[in-house]
Amino acid sequence: MKIKKANKVPFITSLEDDFLSGKNKKQKKLFNEVIDAGFDFYSGKQRDQKFLVYRTPDELKEVFAEAMPEDSTDLPSIINYLRLIGHYSISQSDLSYLAFPDSGNSIAALLGDIYGKFLNQNLIAFDRSAPAATIIEIQLIEWLRALIGYESKELKQIENLAEVSGMCTTGGHMSNHVATLSALNCKYPQIKKDGLSSLDHSPKIVLAGKIGHYSYGAAMHHLGLGNANIINTDSNDDFTTNIDALENVLEQHKDKNDIFMVVAVAGNCRTTGIDNIASIAKICKKYGIWLHVDACHGGSLLFSDKLKKRYLMGIEEADSVALDPHKGLFVAYPCSFVLFKKRDTLVTFTRYEKEARNGESWDLGYITPFLGSRGFESLKLMLLIKHLGKKRLSEITEKRQGDALYVESLIAKSGYFVLFNDMTFYRMAFVYYPNKIRKQVSKFTLSDETNQKIINCIDHYTHTINSELYKEGDICLDEFKLHDIGNQTATNAKETRFYVMSITTGNPLLTNENLKRSLSFLFKKAKRYESAMGKDIVSIIKSDTYAPKVTKTYGPAGWN
Amino acid sequence: MKIKKANKVPFITSLEDDFLSGKNKKQKKLFNEVIDAGFDFYSGKQRDQKFLVYRTPDELKEVFAEAMPEDSTDLPSIINYLRLIGHYSISQSDLSYLAFPDSGNSIAALLGDIYGKFLNQNLIAFDRSAPAATIIEIQLIEWLRALIGYESKELKQIENLAEVSGMCTTGGHMSNHVATLSALNCKYPQIKKDGLSSLDHSPKIVLAGKIGHYSYGAAMHHLGLGNANIINTDSNDDFTTNIDALENVLEQHKDKNDIFMVVAVAGNCRTTGIDNIASIAKICKKYGIWLHVDACHGGSLLFSDKLKKRYLMGIEEADSVALDPHKGLFVAYPCSFVLFKKRDTLVTFTRYEKEARNGESWDLGYITPFLGSRGFESLKLMLLIKHLGKKRLSEITEKRQGDALYVESLIAKSGYFVLFNDMTFYRMAFVYYPNKIRKQVSKFTLSDETNQKIINCIDHYTHTINSELYKEGDICLDEFKLHDIGNQTATNAKETRFYVMSITTGNPLLTNENLKRSLSFLFKKAKRYESAMGKDIVSIIKSDTYAPKVTKTYGPAGWN
Repeated sequence: MKIKKANKVPFITSLEDDFLSGKNKKQKKLFNEVIDAGFDFYSGKQRDQKFLVYRTPDELKEVFAEAMPEDSTDLPSIINYLRLIGHYSISQSDLSYLAFPDSGNSIAALLGDIYGKFLNQNLIAFDRSAPAATIIEIQLIEWLRALIGYESKELKQIENLAEVSGMCTTGGHMSNHVATLSALNCKYPQIKKDGLSSLDHSPKIVLAGKIGHYSYGAAMHHLGLGNANIINTDSNDDFTTNIDALENVLEQHKDKNDIFMVVAVAGNCRTTGIDNIASIAKICKKYGIWLHVDACHGGSLLFSDKLKKRYLMGIEEADSVALDPHKGLFVAYPCSFVLFKKRDTLVTFTRYEKEARNGESWDLGYITPFLGSRGFESLKLMLLIKHLGKKRLSEITEKRQGDALYVESLIAKSGYFVLFNDMTFYRMAFVYYPNKIRKQVSKFTLSDETNQKIINCIDHYTHTINSELYKEGDICLDEFKLHDIGNQTATNAKETRFYVMSITTGNPLLTNENLKRSLSFLFKKAKRYESAMGKDIVSIIKSDTYAPKVTKTYGPAGWN
Repeated sequence: MKIKKANKVPFITSLEDDFLSGKNKKQKKLFNEVIDAGFDFYSGKQRDQKFLVYRTPDELKEVFAEAMPEDSTDLPSIINYLRLIGHYSISQSDLSYLAFPDSGNSIAALLGDIYGKFLNQNLIAFDRSAPAATIIEIQLIEWLRALIGYESKELKQIENLAEVSGMCTTGGHMSNHVATLSALNCKYPQIKKDGLSSLDHSPKIVLAGKIGHYSYGAAMHHLGLGNANIINTDSNDDFTTNIDALENVLEQHKDKNDIFMVVAVAGNCRTTGIDNIASIAKICKKYGIWLHVDACHGGSLLFSDKLKKRYLMGIEEADSVALDPHKGLFVAYPCSFVLFKKRDTLVTFTRYEKEARNGESWDLGYITPFLGSRGFESLKLMLLIKHLGKKRLSEITEKRQGDALYVESLIAKSGYFVLFNDMTFYRMAFVYYPNKIRKQVSKFTLSDETNQKIINCIDHYTHTINSELYKEGDICLDEFKLHDIGNQTATNAKETRFYVMSITTGNPLLTNENLKRSLSFLFKKAKRYESAMGKDIVSIIKSDTYAPKVTKTYGPAGWN
């Protein structure tokens, strides 16, 4: 794409021209031009019809390096600059983008986001800041509570701020922080005043290590608890929490009374495996421990009664639930929520408990830890739900699971890959390890050392294929590290993490046709590397030597 | 404003119609309609030409209460709903809105915000998420570093993630959390693993109590430190930190070695008083304690060499600085930054130090505590600076100070009010207490009890006037609680907080003419209540009885 030379007509004549006065026709034209540029980004025109025009960090530094300008630049040049950014940006809504489910392409949500920027409400407070927005956000929180199965009220029955038992946050990372903080303060209310150093023991949380999200380690660090105070328990072959192992841990710590939270995962970030929430809830109840359900991925299933019943039974028993509509619900960043079973949980975070309880104050900033001034980010989700309605969202969620099952069948049928998980709802992880080669390898009994070399070889080809595809811009798969818990690769290496590639069918516009087209790029590449990998594997088995080892960094889903 | 009946033409026919496909002309038309609605909000047309069409919380619940819809609603109805929200929303960019400096009306910034929603980049990671956006945000952080006077590099010289020593956050509240957390971890690196309960003492921070922002108490709570571990030191009559008192505290705690951070304030949230940063920096250096400068309000002065020299000398000596461009820099929420003097401060927050240091990873999510997936919120500030340039921003900042001085002179001249502060750069606080009445009162020697009754009376009338003005929608002043540190009211009540009204001239489009017009509403109301207040004061002095006492909740600037 060529960037037009900046228009040199001086556009800056007075403050009224620089700032939005709502009176200027020239201004409105500029907004329409930005909408055009936005549509060109969506349609692919802005990106040479690829999901990304790839450049290295150093190349992008060349493009975007500039000194802070002393002088003004006219607005048409600013729009050219936006188009330049679009040219080198990735499109998560492109139909060939299958790395994350963050398609952000709900038209109603986007309309709300745009209008919300004009509104610029500040949800720290009701008066002087955000009257209507405050009330609408409280309504939305009640809807989300109802979806989970929490006690939910009509808006008019919400009599005070203390009853607002949910919070709009910036992302799952923060929702999980707020949940952890709430659980902690529920067990140890004295730390608000005196801090953790007043305790005589180190509070702990429990989660299944191999499927846990990195946000919990971070939260333990940031909240002053220390990430060594995470108890990592076992996971099952299907990437879910092992219930017996969890119960064992709680039993062992019963007398120490030092565990304040258990995390159950409703759609882990790698394979979207879903825990048996009902069983975990029962155990947590038995031991009197706060249950947090991380439904950042699985939350979208709440709209489908069928999928909710199948996968999320018992979620209403959780003390807190994190939902991440910017994942899997087609709204742009930021949009996340944390909700609490107990109505007045967030009152812990205000120093004005009386005002929060007596119905006099409706200032959400009283009860939102980490957030003071903040915009009307919840509007997009309100509009998504208002526009599509629960039924339609249910259909879309179910259809998307169908897309993922279709992809899984094609991946399996191709014969090039080993899938690490049976697809649950929209995400699957796999490595490049063609059937033909595996069949040959299975004839040998191999040492651990040889197996490790085979793993290095699998990593090498998986990463090579994935990187090439990414840089070519025709199909975007995710890459992260993952344990082969179920030993699908037959490498007997339960403690080694593989570089996997991953596909997520988050975009509601996907069709079998374009999925097939995108996968054809993957399969073509897979075919091309088959004989090279075969030779490498033979030489590993014969001579036990193999050099390449991928050490490149990997994506967020693999951070922990 | 009448809301048109929902258009019942079925707009939902297929997924392609519901979701943004970038191909549909009908879709583009909807976006243009939302832009029109946005302009109508800016111009005041959407709000009956007032800054707000006031409704109580209960009335707004009536307007916005609805059950979660099962069925779909067409998009034209969604746009009607947006207009309805606009009708009951407050406009911080209206020329009669003088409560906060969050005007959010930079046209370049708004264009960037809109385009940014189309882009939907995820700045958690470079690959697969946000290639260009990551690089541009790093460039912007270097610009901000240069403005502060920190060591700053050309973009191409930033060789790895560890060198990125600033973070885009959601607001000053969070920026202050991140600064506190960084200071804490700098002094006690062991808590990352073992937590605060491994320490044998309670870490403390110091700030001037009467001018401190509520975010520090919150941070102490949330980070596990306990808000009792804030040492509140004295402030001067001009609402700045008392240097001697601060030094005293540090000297007293020298041997205990339990203070890890001092907060200096560059523009407190109530009167925008600015500390003597250079002196505080010198003291902090002497005692080896982390200095955090909260420049959430004062940060905009960095663009003016003149104002920077006059008010912010020594800011480059701070270990961390919080800036809040959504305050006082005309960009919408969310937009805040925290910056660090030491280059690799944020590396503390990653578990992947090697990758952060070796130049292999450019994933900002490695080094951003509390934030994982997040959008390209920094784009708006980049565009503001690119569009206006430093010179123009300097002019605007200086002009705005002039606006505030003009308002101050009119308030003083009116004879109705007692100003609590000499205006520094854009915010002043005052109470209703007409000169005529004060003169009479000054003839008496009054008991503390009588003075308290006079304060209650001042509160009552100040609050009454402010509330009426607010509900009428012609001029919006802020309301919060504030100590009369300088005893301007001559009530000798240094420990009592008054309900003050406050004016901020944040909007760059303000003119003397419209300021005068807005103030005329204030003065008219002030005149109306003069004789009633006079009578009340006489009866207080005579009979020592006075009933009304304002207990209503107040705005965020007064939270602490």
